[in-house]
Amino acid sequence: MAAMWFITTLSLLLLSAGVCNGGVTSKYVRLSERSVDIPVGYFSPPPGFNAPEQVHITQGDHVGRSVIVSWVTPLERHPNVVTYWEAEGNHKHKHAAHAIITDYRYFNYTSGYIHHATIKRLKYDTKYFYELGEHNVTRRFSFTTPPKVGPDVPYTFGVMGDLGQTYASFSTLEHYMSNPKGQAVLFVGDLSYADDHPYHDNVKWDTWGRFVEKSVAYQPWIWCAGNHELDFAPEIDENIPFKPYLHRYHVPYRASQSTSPLWYSIKRASAYIIVLSSYSAYGKYTPQYNWLQNEFPKVDRTETPWLIVLLHSPWYNSNNYHYMEGESMRVMFEPWFVQNKVDIVFAGHVHAYERSERISNVQYNITDGLSAPVKDPSAPIYITIGDGGNIEGIADLFTEPQPSYSAYREASFGHSIFEIKNRSHAYYTWHRNHENEAIAADSLWLYNRYWYPYEERISGTMD
Amino acid sequence: MAAMWFITTLSLLLLSAGVCNGGVTSKYVRLSERSVDIPVGYFSPPPGFNAPEQVHITQGDHVGRSVIVSWVTPLERHPNVVTYWEAEGNHKHKHAAHAIITDYRYFNYTSGYIHHATIKRLKYDTKYFYELGEHNVTRRFSFTTPPKVGPDVPYTFGVMGDLGQTYASFSTLEHYMSNPKGQAVLFVGDLSYADDHPYHDNVKWDTWGRFVEKSVAYQPWIWCAGNHELDFAPEIDENIPFKPYLHRYHVPYRASQSTSPLWYSIKRASAYIIVLSSYSAYGKYTPQYNWLQNEFPKVDRTETPWLIVLLHSPWYNSNNYHYMEGESMRVMFEPWFVQNKVDIVFAGHVHAYERSERISNVQYNITDGLSAPVKDPSAPIYITIGDGGNIEGIADLFTEPQPSYSAYREASFGHSIFEIKNRSHAYYTWHRNHENEAIAADSLWLYNRYWYPYEERISGTMD
Repeated sequence: MAAMWFITTLSLLLLSAGVCNGGVTSKYVRLSERSVDIPVGYFSPPPGFNAPEQVHITQGDHVGRSVIVSWVTPLERHPNVVTYWEAEGNHKHKHAAHAIITDYRYFNYTSGYIHHATIKRLKYDTKYFYELGEHNVTRRFSFTTPPKVGPDVPYTFGVMGDLGQTYASFSTLEHYMSNPKGQAVLFVGDLSYADDHPYHDNVKWDTWGRFVEKSVAYQPWIWCAGNHELDFAPEIDENIPFKPYLHRYHVPYRASQSTSPLWYSIKRASAYIIVLSSYSAYGKYTPQYNWLQNEFPKVDRTETPWLIVLLHSPWYNSNNYHYMEGESMRVMFEPWFVQNKVDIVFAGHVHAYERSERISNVQYNITDGLSAPVKDPSAPIYITIGDGGNIEGIADLFTEPQPSYSAYREASFGHSIFEIKNRSHAYYTWHRNHENEAIAADSLWLYNRYWYPYEERISGTMD
Repeated sequence: MAAMWFITTLSLLLLSAGVCNGGVTSKYVRLSERSVDIPVGYFSPPPGFNAPEQVHITQGDHVGRSVIVSWVTPLERHPNVVTYWEAEGNHKHKHAAHAIITDYRYFNYTSGYIHHATIKRLKYDTKYFYELGEHNVTRRFSFTTPPKVGPDVPYTFGVMGDLGQTYASFSTLEHYMSNPKGQAVLFVGDLSYADDHPYHDNVKWDTWGRFVEKSVAYQPWIWCAGNHELDFAPEIDENIPFKPYLHRYHVPYRASQSTSPLWYSIKRASAYIIVLSSYSAYGKYTPQYNWLQNEFPKVDRTETPWLIVLLHSPWYNSNNYHYMEGESMRVMFEPWFVQNKVDIVFAGHVHAYERSERISNVQYNITDGLSAPVKDPSAPIYITIGDGGNIEGIADLFTEPQPSYSAYREASFGHSIFEIKNRSHAYYTWHRNHENEAIAADSLWLYNRYWYPYEERISGTMD
């Protein structure tokens, strides 16, 4: 039945789009314009004394029945409570969860009070309201929990990376939000780009928190750390990697037996999502290596057919920007990805868009000279989606000729939508953020590597 | 003049040893015997109430005018003073340096009081006595500071790794100490192997400290961390990597602008020694990467001709044990090693001995298929000296055939001596620890890559 449906869909696609042989470098090149941050004043704090701001949520446990609600209060530590209730239920049944409170100093900056409250034992697939603040300064938001984890649960993820807070960033986020499908965001690292400003001006962390609130206060963003989260600056005596990021963004790492918030996993609907850290140790015997080695056997594809990995520095990238920076991590982990039939890997870092073929490069043994990527039906598709649109501008210098592992590449900003239909099929689209609408400049029906390990027949949508 | 002397020496060597074409796999194979630790009781603490024990020294600054003296007191925190004086001077001029004191818990173990005192502003090339303890429980040791840093200062380093505390370890250390030449030890990681015992029995850290005291209390050992220093054990809630090691072994990392004791550099005599961590992050943008990138330009070969790197997991290893584990770090750093003409890299990890040709493997660009090591006169020689003789036994399974990058390999225990003669020449020997004497089973005149970048003509001494 699913197969029939698929063939029909395929026929339609064949009519509407050319089938490409070999990789495509899109002729569309975004006009090179100066990337500037939206002025700080635009992201002013919400009105009212000590009003809770920079509200953001993420999944709070391994299966989606908890939510971590985070917010900042600028002046006083309290209140440290989030009140929440079912949207459809009896409103008199309000519940409360208490936050832990943290703060930090970074060079000449002092943060507000950063609150993290975990709301537990929620019902699946249920809309909740939640409220922060007190007296006449309260703010109300809502979220919807995911359906119970299961193999055929449809679910739609947005995918963004390297977002920053420029006018292009603004456009990317607006485009994502204008699409009602997205239920949660997979964020592949590089949030605020505070470190591009003098002394890593941490006010930019605050303004970024305000900028994305309109999305992340209402649906969980699944966090992955990028190089711009390092904030490692010995020249100003700031030597603790990831200090602002780890204070501000909490993730449920303990639920997956991780010992660090920089690598962890969650299940959500029909997806198993593994988050890795390109900027932590990954050599054999290291905590991240040990964790990942133990993690793959825990993935049950009969429960979560879709195995997705998020990491920041891409393994397959044919842009001169950051070319081969991911090699060192690829060398460690790629064999596991292939053995465990990862469906798709989302990375950021390169400020352009690229989609790979299903290829692997694991045959090399030092002396055999075999080191070119080869077609591999067990390999993931690698997506570089570091095109959120940040202050550093576009990465518009691709290597030539386009290597065979690269299926589609384009020097534009945008975001992706990963739409899981059932255990075998997912529809993937990349939306260029130009013009006033989100154009799907690249799209693909993805076949699950465990349940339907056939070759995807349309590689790249011509444009 | 130096050249003449060299040619004469070379002729003698040509007479006494066969010149090998191609790599040599020694026919000598150490009898496989059970590796067992020397019983804990053998390494009993020194007599007397609260007697200072596990005394060890290392270089305490960047140039060799400081010494870090470390020791443990089992019962009381004090005294925390080391008294020291010039051996040849007026003994009434005693000086004192105060220690910082630390301790730690590890699962069911509580450490003694661990003292670290830095003695500063010492004279170069001078013997000092130092004394620890008080009342009728004092212990006296001595050390000799290195000559002032300079290009033609002869200096002899011992090199050991993966030592452990077995009968074989004992033999290795005895053999090293029986040779009066060694002035300091380059230790390439894996000290006590406490983690091979239930709950990482940290008593083994104490016994190891007692075991090596007879050498390291008298000459500095330059420390490099191995995987057995990680002591990462989430199953017993020990999640802080390197916890026992970092409490026990201090190094002068700040003197080289490092932000972590796991990577740093020192100058000593005519050598510039860079210590790296195979088990910390080394990806681009990480602290270790940034540090190393800034470090190479600081090396002035007219001041320190000999550029030596210590790391634990070897990049070129043709043993099936740990085969290719070093690839991930090699991918990151090898181009810098070649560009900066590192003379020699000492690694451990593999429990056997191996010496490489001068080769590099940096031409690979993902698509060119070029990934085999090639001869490279700017490349270092790679030595695997993880053959200290620990509880895990010998690594006696080499890959066959011997790859071209491997010049000499032997499945035995032993240590090396690296004898710098002047800016152009150093004599390197590897000493198998079998029988009752330290046999130089491999030896080589090394030519400095900056001052005398010719091909070493004798590759491997037959035996």
